[in-house]
Amino acid sequence: MNIDLAFTADEIAGKDLQGKTVVVIDALRATSTMITALENGCLAFIPVATIEEAKKLFDDLADPKLLLGGERRALPVAGFHLGNSPRDYRPEKVRGKIVIMTTTNGTRALVAASKGAEVLIGAFLNLGALCRRLEESGRDVLIACSGEKGFFCLEDTVCGGAMIGRLEEEGVSVKLSDAALGAKILYEYFAEDIYGMLAACEWGQYLERMGLGKDVRLCARIDSSQLVPIYREGKVFLDR
Amino acid sequence: MNIDLAFTADEIAGKDLQGKTVVVIDALRATSTMITALENGCLAFIPVATIEEAKKLFDDLADPKLLLGGERRALPVAGFHLGNSPRDYRPEKVRGKIVIMTTTNGTRALVAASKGAEVLIGAFLNLGALCRRLEESGRDVLIACSGEKGFFCLEDTVCGGAMIGRLEEEGVSVKLSDAALGAKILYEYFAEDIYGMLAACEWGQYLERMGLGKDVRLCARIDSSQLVPIYREGKVFLDR
Repeated sequence: MNIDLAFTADEIAGKDLQGKTVVVIDALRATSTMITALENGCLAFIPVATIEEAKKLFDDLADPKLLLGGERRALPVAGFHLGNSPRDYRPEKVRGKIVIMTTTNGTRALVAASKGAEVLIGAFLNLGALCRRLEESGRDVLIACSGEKGFFCLEDTVCGGAMIGRLEEEGVSVKLSDAALGAKILYEYFAEDIYGMLAACEWGQYLERMGLGKDVRLCARIDSSQLVPIYREGKVFLDR
Repeated sequence: MNIDLAFTADEIAGKDLQGKTVVVIDALRATSTMITALENGCLAFIPVATIEEAKKLFDDLADPKLLLGGERRALPVAGFHLGNSPRDYRPEKVRGKIVIMTTTNGTRALVAASKGAEVLIGAFLNLGALCRRLEESGRDVLIACSGEKGFFCLEDTVCGGAMIGRLEEEGVSVKLSDAALGAKILYEYFAEDIYGMLAACEWGQYLERMGLGKDVRLCARIDSSQLVPIYREGKVFLDR
């Protein structure tokens, strides 16, 4: 299995994705939040790029199942039903609902990834389940980190590295690009304290300063979910 | 000293460089070749983006001191005097000469870096001298990796990490971005065998396959030069 890794949405857009499984990661917090919401009975997410687009789609569809979710600089958007905190997506709020979602980095990464043969949603929460799915499919993999405003971020890269580490532990024979090898080495460095890494990285520090430290802790719950959401035809949902 | 790091020319272009020292690295091989050539008495390099631009400038300037140098996919360019191998830039060829140079990644990185307060040329060859210069200037630093065709490459990142490691060893107090921290960790992983890393990374393997393994070995000669070339007003040269 060939594994490559992109650090940003721009890099994802520049890669040849044909025939590949693409795993989109926005560990703090979008993909962790999506997994949490789907665990809590949410039906799907519709990721869109802008706040305006989200509002327009909400108005146009006028479906009582719809909710508006998302953030800008980690803060909820005025008039939206949900932010980007996994704690917002409680069962009583999201069960049976579809969330139109706009986040700074995660949405761009998903759109860039959509040329892949299949697009999966990854985070520390579903690490093991995701790796089993990758192993089943057997396709070459692009790990697509969302990054932070077009730049490298440590947490997505370490999460991608953790996937590679897990695949190797399970005996999968992998051939790594420079970027994938770098991510694996970074994961091994932080493996004993993933929460510490999440709290110390740039975006984690920012979330802590914004009073969102509980979210950081939730996003560090490795293997707490067995769900592997897919992104297909503009929606994130569970296909089985 | 705040230290940030960009993996590619596109990332360099997106960073705020005001008031910063920018260190451009293309360890395999452009910046290593430039340092070698200046050691051998070459006066300067004029980096340009395209082969056509190089030829036009050569014809327009019509100066007997000028030579044409560069590569595409590691191969010399037809009609050029020099390739991008440090072994090409022997004293008898380059002493007193100015080389109009076009390479795939290094030139783009230099142009993107030119908004910095000063732009220095870095490689494993001049690691110690470069770090002393950074220490003297005391400015914040952006380590600007050239990358490979718009993507991360291991060798430039590890070289940038080596600079950070060296600065820390010399007691400089540094504050690292996620990317700079990642580079430092990768350097520490490979520190005992920099040549092995250079020979095993994607571009190093390519060079080995092209019969250019000797170049890889030359580019691994840590601290073999005390020169710190600068890039200013479109030229790479020694200012002292």
